[in-house]
Amino acid sequence: MLQQPANKYHPFPPVSLSDRQWPARTLTSAPRWLSTDLRDGNQSLAEPMDAARKKIFWQLLVQCGFKEIEVAFPSASQTDFNFVRELIEEGMIPDDVTIQVLTQARADLIDRTFAALEGAKQACIHLYNATAPVFRRLVFRQSREQIIELAVNATRLIRQRCEEQPQTLWTFEYSPETFCFTEADFALEICEAVAAVWQPCAQRPMIINLPATVEVSTPNVYADQIEYFCRHFSQRPQVCISVHPHNDRGTGIAAAELALLAGADRVEGCLFGNGERTGNVDLVTMALNFYTQGIHPQLDFSQMKQVVDVVEQCNQLPVHPRHPYAGELVFTAFSGSHQDAIKKGFAARQQQQDQRWEVPYLPLDPADIGCSYEAVIRVNSQSGKSGAAWMIEQNHGLSLPRALQQDFSQQVQQVADRENREMTQTAIWQLFRRVYGIEAPHLQLGEYRSESDSRGELRFDAGIEQGDKHYSISGRGNGLLSAAADALRKTLDLSFTIQDYHEHTLGQRSDSRSVTYLRCIFAGNRSAWGVGIDSDVSRASLQALLNAVAQGRSEGK
Amino acid sequence: MLQQPANKYHPFPPVSLSDRQWPARTLTSAPRWLSTDLRDGNQSLAEPMDAARKKIFWQLLVQCGFKEIEVAFPSASQTDFNFVRELIEEGMIPDDVTIQVLTQARADLIDRTFAALEGAKQACIHLYNATAPVFRRLVFRQSREQIIELAVNATRLIRQRCEEQPQTLWTFEYSPETFCFTEADFALEICEAVAAVWQPCAQRPMIINLPATVEVSTPNVYADQIEYFCRHFSQRPQVCISVHPHNDRGTGIAAAELALLAGADRVEGCLFGNGERTGNVDLVTMALNFYTQGIHPQLDFSQMKQVVDVVEQCNQLPVHPRHPYAGELVFTAFSGSHQDAIKKGFAARQQQQDQRWEVPYLPLDPADIGCSYEAVIRVNSQSGKSGAAWMIEQNHGLSLPRALQQDFSQQVQQVADRENREMTQTAIWQLFRRVYGIEAPHLQLGEYRSESDSRGELRFDAGIEQGDKHYSISGRGNGLLSAAADALRKTLDLSFTIQDYHEHTLGQRSDSRSVTYLRCIFAGNRSAWGVGIDSDVSRASLQALLNAVAQGRSEGK
Repeated sequence: MLQQPANKYHPFPPVSLSDRQWPARTLTSAPRWLSTDLRDGNQSLAEPMDAARKKIFWQLLVQCGFKEIEVAFPSASQTDFNFVRELIEEGMIPDDVTIQVLTQARADLIDRTFAALEGAKQACIHLYNATAPVFRRLVFRQSREQIIELAVNATRLIRQRCEEQPQTLWTFEYSPETFCFTEADFALEICEAVAAVWQPCAQRPMIINLPATVEVSTPNVYADQIEYFCRHFSQRPQVCISVHPHNDRGTGIAAAELALLAGADRVEGCLFGNGERTGNVDLVTMALNFYTQGIHPQLDFSQMKQVVDVVEQCNQLPVHPRHPYAGELVFTAFSGSHQDAIKKGFAARQQQQDQRWEVPYLPLDPADIGCSYEAVIRVNSQSGKSGAAWMIEQNHGLSLPRALQQDFSQQVQQVADRENREMTQTAIWQLFRRVYGIEAPHLQLGEYRSESDSRGELRFDAGIEQGDKHYSISGRGNGLLSAAADALRKTLDLSFTIQDYHEHTLGQRSDSRSVTYLRCIFAGNRSAWGVGIDSDVSRASLQALLNAVAQGRSEGK
Repeated sequence: MLQQPANKYHPFPPVSLSDRQWPARTLTSAPRWLSTDLRDGNQSLAEPMDAARKKIFWQLLVQCGFKEIEVAFPSASQTDFNFVRELIEEGMIPDDVTIQVLTQARADLIDRTFAALEGAKQACIHLYNATAPVFRRLVFRQSREQIIELAVNATRLIRQRCEEQPQTLWTFEYSPETFCFTEADFALEICEAVAAVWQPCAQRPMIINLPATVEVSTPNVYADQIEYFCRHFSQRPQVCISVHPHNDRGTGIAAAELALLAGADRVEGCLFGNGERTGNVDLVTMALNFYTQGIHPQLDFSQMKQVVDVVEQCNQLPVHPRHPYAGELVFTAFSGSHQDAIKKGFAARQQQQDQRWEVPYLPLDPADIGCSYEAVIRVNSQSGKSGAAWMIEQNHGLSLPRALQQDFSQQVQQVADRENREMTQTAIWQLFRRVYGIEAPHLQLGEYRSESDSRGELRFDAGIEQGDKHYSISGRGNGLLSAAADALRKTLDLSFTIQDYHEHTLGQRSDSRSVTYLRCIFAGNRSAWGVGIDSDVSRASLQALLNAVAQGRSEGK
């Protein structure tokens, strides 16, 4: 990198707008949307879509609710021309969808474009020519007047061709290409000249599209340019103002949102921001941004996984794991404190009377885009006590007591730290079952018998398996657990007390199994937990005790 | 998705700021940067970095020029604690770099944090607590007063610990977490209370960090919040205002840029926007955005490929192909008209006296970040005549005449359309060599002789191989090519004229080889091109003629 970039790079001078209105406005309704995936997006792929893939993408766009879809540049490629014919001839265009096609300002190309559209119920012809100084000087070597003449002549021809094919409802779109680095007065001048020929009205709809072909400024500058244009364009009420931001500075979405505040009516872009170089503005993120502000975007992304799958398959480009709303990590918290807050948010939601969504760290309810809550909490060495407990509760219905959560999180962290990897749901559940004796307990309760005498003293007798060994134990106490503890102390020559005891049923039915969580304190204040699950509540408690004792004994060694 | 999101989602009410100043400002200098890759970024990885990977990432950050690096949350994990000790004890921290660590507002955690930092030359203690209503109500169940007390007490303890370890130069950073959805007055109140304890001054530097922990509004709202804070905070000149935007709405970069306009001094983020969920603001893009505005970012990304490699390896997350400045497609044009404009931009640049960068569609010179121009133009079925010609010129030095560009682009498009794939450099060069006779010509010139008589008439004799066949040909004309054409017409019984002839040397040296481009017109106005390359100019021309004739003959059959 240069030490003095100021000698090489120069910002585009901003438009002068001292009384701008847009920063004080808020978004209150969704714009019109144009998907340009099948044209602009397609052109930017190393391997452009073939007809089959274009058709699959088309169906997806219709399913998502797009009413305006730019489908091709029919005069530039035979594949594109054929695709337009296919859509029309096979009756694939719903009555409320308008297809749009791009053309350059040349008579032969315009004629070819109209040939492609023959028989369409409604269609939009999108004319563009380059207007920015660098293009006028370096690429086309034409004066302002020549550039205007080109656009005006092409518009005249297009209007004539439209009038010759009155069976189609025509819309006309004009783009002063590279608007964002065209002088503000010249962009206005050429659009006025074009509109003067087209004469926009209800019967002759017109869209003026003001693209940020290459992003060159902070997004507030683009908003200023749009507001300036909207306030100075003489036929503003008769036209729809469209924006088409790219993302070279990573601020395409912001540019589109601020442009809407500044008066634009319509946004052109692609799903997940595909398009030449850094891509066009991402319409999925934009739409869901509206959604999370309580405004219906008029697009439907309730089946996000399917949308991602189809787009990845058609574009052969991935959606990034951190892509807003769609990436596989964007609803996931790994950090302990975040997991804790999310858990509390979900818990509060269960008490709540209304629909209102207020879960910390989750701006969108994953369910609204067809996702489960499974990915919301994932556990690695950075996670606290909440994460693993949450997973066990969500998947297996066990509500671990707080102190057991703490105990288990240390077990989890040890494994995660040692193996330096994420702990999956399965791994966490296996660890839990192994540590607390649900699976293959060291001491396994066999047959047992309890008898309570009239004074309330209970006698407990049981058989216990430890590997090949068999113990018969016997003890007394004022209840089942105290008698069993007494028996174990004597048989195993061990000193301990029972400290915590929690129990709940798994599920709502009367024949549901019970789960018992039990902690024993051993000499030296060591503690150990055991868990038991059984359809017999007593057996669950007794096995939990055996498990706690077995663990405490093994740790004491 | 819900039909009525308005019942479920509600925008955060914006701060009232009628006389905002930021929209009229422009960026004129780089902010202070804090990389939080090793802490915040690391926490969000399914498999957090181990010590070895953290060290590699640390070295990269130092190499890129970061002077403030948040390295750990030492009280939360042993790995983090050890990493801080390692940096200090192994003397890995350059004198001009300040490490920063995060802590919660608990005495034991603060003490552990200071233990981790013992012996650091300079360090920043970063304290945070959650201040937003949803956290106060759902997560902590604390009043405003209790939340303030928590922050104030922690600050008091931190100040005390700092004074006890005067050998370290301490900075203190405070973050009212979830600032962006904390009430503006409460964010101010708690920061005032904290600053009143710390008493910021030159000897006791203080940073107030105002995070958009979850992005919940359009970026202009965040800018308003920052400007409001800066204008109302009583000790504004004594503190550094930092921003830490996330990217849940895809507008993190815009939020940071507008926040700088609104008065912020410093930006916290990660390389390529890593971090929990959708990530933190991407510091690579932000820095290069400054660069392309002619402002040195004070960070160095001149070896972008290495940066991408190291980050991908450490985070085990990809950098997307369309990621601004860093993705593999972001300097690539596939479309014909874009390729044409880029070619003209590069051509104009060769004439240009100054350094100024003005190449259409390329906001940054790829060379400035260590990239070649190889990827700038790639060719597929969407490409026009310029792309393939550009590649051949860049890689092999051949400047094809315009009409030959057109001819070749049709050949390229046929192959690209048929095989439905991108044409690589190698494939394009092979196609060119085959079609125009540079490789395995149908008619191969053997020995030749020319004699010019005193009247200027030239006699030409040559041997020609066509597979196994050998022709001896002889003809007359007023020059070498016309005599050779005469000979070919007679021998092959063919009618044609030579139409275009271009020649240039390959390279600058006097013994360089020459290349000849030659077009013949055959009956029915068919035309065919041939190309010859030879160190003998005459032989290059003659072979080009043979190649054109061979191609014309085969097409006429």
